[in-house]
Amino acid sequence: MHEINIEKKILMKNDEIASGTRLAFRKMGIFAINMVSSPGSGKTSIIEESVKKLGVKAGGIAVIEGDQETELDKKRIERCGVPAHQITTGRACHLDAEMICSALEWVMDQKNLKLLIIENVGNMVCPAEYDLGEEMMVVILSVAEGDDKPLKYPALFNAADVLIINKIDLTPQTNFDIERAKKNALKINPGLKIFTTSCTTGEGITEWCAFIAGLAAKGTEVKE
Amino acid sequence: MHEINIEKKILMKNDEIASGTRLAFRKMGIFAINMVSSPGSGKTSIIEESVKKLGVKAGGIAVIEGDQETELDKKRIERCGVPAHQITTGRACHLDAEMICSALEWVMDQKNLKLLIIENVGNMVCPAEYDLGEEMMVVILSVAEGDDKPLKYPALFNAADVLIINKIDLTPQTNFDIERAKKNALKINPGLKIFTTSCTTGEGITEWCAFIAGLAAKGTEVKE
Repeated sequence: MHEINIEKKILMKNDEIASGTRLAFRKMGIFAINMVSSPGSGKTSIIEESVKKLGVKAGGIAVIEGDQETELDKKRIERCGVPAHQITTGRACHLDAEMICSALEWVMDQKNLKLLIIENVGNMVCPAEYDLGEEMMVVILSVAEGDDKPLKYPALFNAADVLIINKIDLTPQTNFDIERAKKNALKINPGLKIFTTSCTTGEGITEWCAFIAGLAAKGTEVKE
Repeated sequence: MHEINIEKKILMKNDEIASGTRLAFRKMGIFAINMVSSPGSGKTSIIEESVKKLGVKAGGIAVIEGDQETELDKKRIERCGVPAHQITTGRACHLDAEMICSALEWVMDQKNLKLLIIENVGNMVCPAEYDLGEEMMVVILSVAEGDDKPLKYPALFNAADVLIINKIDLTPQTNFDIERAKKNALKINPGLKIFTTSCTTGEGITEWCAFIAGLAAKGTEVKE
């Protein structure tokens, strides 16, 4: 019981910090997105394609990268001409609100920022419980991973607002059934908005980008 | 600091239970393998192909399946004619020694058991820290996930004894470089034994099965 109480306290403290961070983002007119998935589902590639396509159209974009180790993803994003900030979590398996709050100064230094994309540590479990102060949580599932994943990791699919089914160009080489994946995901969370994308062929990226550009343009009026 | 001490205590308690469990497995002549990877890298498929190929040759085989929710994987394994036991972890992102210890009675009920394969919850972070009482930890990385993963999740690749690079039939459709992945993995852990496999074409499965059949035949003399 003692351990559970400690965990509850950690999550409550996290929620408090996240609420403050969300307020700060809103005051600055920044729409923040939290991208969550297992390792290698294509989070970074989707962000790369998104920032290339959105360019300056959606106003200023910046990216916060979360990884256990390395600055590889920060460098990938910077090569697309967009400012990126790396958080290395060491042993921790998820970003938390405190880490994002500690990056607020860096966020404030980015001029005319409208859209902040936060790429979480690759993990389908723990990030579901840690509010980062974002407006929208996006879960990415690659067709290489299997269409049963929404049923096996329900907490994440339940916490998310959007599902991106990625790497759809690989579908013919797998036994992944896109319609079954959608059905499984909607069974867990009927409110999910779903996109299907491929960063290799570019399919679906335009629709996804139009969606987030719209949200960034409307700013935080959406949920406030 | 208080939180860190609690975490240390949890890990110390886990290590104690794991040591006891390992001793029990050894007394029973069971070689236990802990299979770890991110969701959808093909753990269950590799186990399916392995138990089909090994058949009775390696003596009795049983499988413990770890998932947050569902008994889907237990059913998949049972369809291969091998006994399986499902552990659903609920909110927890990894199996721990206590969960495996609690399954000891089920393990003891399996007659002439030589090889116990434990499939962990899909997660590249936390399972690295939780000894389950196994003799060998195997990490699986699918070519759909990217060859940079050993650098980004070093704790797991460092804790593992074996790396299986899976879904190699998909390599031409990805920018995954198998040699670079091996190099990255060996940079983190020079002692890693590496297999490359595809459950679709069957490539590499024979070599992998010969390896674990050898270990199961030798029993736990290997490390005792």
